[in-house]
Amino acid sequence: MDLWFTEDYHDGWQLSVRVDRVLATETSRYQRIDVLQTRDFGKMLVIDGRVQACELDEFVYHEMIVHPALLCHENPRRVLVAGGGDGGSMREVMKHPTIETGYLVEIDERVIELCREHMPNLATKDPRIVDHPADAAEFLNQVNDLDMIVVDSSDPVGPAEALFSKTFYNNLKKALAPQGMVTLQAGSPFFYKEQIRQMIDDLKTIFPVVRPYNIPMPTYPSGTWTLVAASTDLDPACVPQKELERRLRERTLKTRYYSPAVHHGSMSLPPFMDQ
Amino acid sequence: MDLWFTEDYHDGWQLSVRVDRVLATETSRYQRIDVLQTRDFGKMLVIDGRVQACELDEFVYHEMIVHPALLCHENPRRVLVAGGGDGGSMREVMKHPTIETGYLVEIDERVIELCREHMPNLATKDPRIVDHPADAAEFLNQVNDLDMIVVDSSDPVGPAEALFSKTFYNNLKKALAPQGMVTLQAGSPFFYKEQIRQMIDDLKTIFPVVRPYNIPMPTYPSGTWTLVAASTDLDPACVPQKELERRLRERTLKTRYYSPAVHHGSMSLPPFMDQ
Repeated sequence: MDLWFTEDYHDGWQLSVRVDRVLATETSRYQRIDVLQTRDFGKMLVIDGRVQACELDEFVYHEMIVHPALLCHENPRRVLVAGGGDGGSMREVMKHPTIETGYLVEIDERVIELCREHMPNLATKDPRIVDHPADAAEFLNQVNDLDMIVVDSSDPVGPAEALFSKTFYNNLKKALAPQGMVTLQAGSPFFYKEQIRQMIDDLKTIFPVVRPYNIPMPTYPSGTWTLVAASTDLDPACVPQKELERRLRERTLKTRYYSPAVHHGSMSLPPFMDQ
Repeated sequence: MDLWFTEDYHDGWQLSVRVDRVLATETSRYQRIDVLQTRDFGKMLVIDGRVQACELDEFVYHEMIVHPALLCHENPRRVLVAGGGDGGSMREVMKHPTIETGYLVEIDERVIELCREHMPNLATKDPRIVDHPADAAEFLNQVNDLDMIVVDSSDPVGPAEALFSKTFYNNLKKALAPQGMVTLQAGSPFFYKEQIRQMIDDLKTIFPVVRPYNIPMPTYPSGTWTLVAASTDLDPACVPQKELERRLRERTLKTRYYSPAVHHGSMSLPPFMDQ
């Protein structure tokens, strides 16, 4: 059978991938979840019709939403992942041996369960991980002293909407320890410039340091995605490459996309984004 | 009418864009040429069903296949563009005031003519440009002392096949002046790794310096494309950023994607490409 999954990016733009098998389809309390075995991209998690993660390129996203910030911290111990039910961000967090606790705060338990069953490459079993099936926006009020928060949310429509508000950004700041850092996903610099600008402007009212950076993501609209790191003091673009290299070696991190040179390269934004 | 153009990237992968109007369709001596007015990407040149250039992102490709190499040269005077019938590469070359002659060697005059008519943003009228409707592989034997050659070809299937051979690479080298540099397009690092590796290996048998670098290209497969610079002596990754900035100012270059920081960032390859 000729089976294709199509994501409508815009009114006038679609990505289609051939599907060998539908591994799971269900509607949870929050959203529709599909796991597809695709021909060219490996297994793919789709939520409400939008690609969230797939085996081909998830390593780029998950390494880059975690390591640039975590390597800026000398001794990160407590990390919270908001969303991130596929497990990929937590897998990268756990690569840092200094970590004592990793809170996984995913609102939809079915995402976690389906990914553990069908996409085990993204999951990690580790006694340091604490699962909290909760709304990250609410749970944030119950924790503090975090060295890093990864906001690994879906898009600002649906259950993740509250994760793109100034109130939420303020709660992020309150939950951070000194030297703590937040990373968030912002959108495509080619198509969602206004959304990215708004997010950066909002973050700047709360965090003194706001640093956008770009990564390639073949299965996200336009193939390039902007992530943002925010903190009260430390600028990830100003940590010397030699220092990052030393920490990478000390923590014996194995990465496929991240490197200290890539770290700095990703933060060198093209003029059309500087405006 | 609901009109869509679809490019099959692979057996199991397609990009589709909504077409408001077909501006031109014809079959030249060499290939099928279409110019489309798309909904989200502006005007788009399609050759044999493959996107070659479109208004949304052509500035990234054309700036980055030209400026990294041309800014490494202190005083570039003679440049040849092999292919590049859409005009975008030559437009970027002409931004350098030191240039005396720019040879545009496109085998298919109809590409030049249709782009001049329908995509005038890509074209430049300049008395320094010399049009040579010829096979670049043959024409190369008639010129020498070139400071830069831009191989702005289509893919290695069809009329551009000869532009991906060791014989052609050797002819490129012979046509260069001392300190001359060649740039070529190689493919997607996510999907054509073997093609890129082969090209780099072939180039390395001829040029002492071979430097791949990545650019985002939403309308090319996977959204990321690898370009390659090759020379007999000068490594574009080793020209200090300050020096590039000085030349950029002196030549009063206006760019939307290129900057000296982006220049170096694009050459910081991720570990998965280093293998």
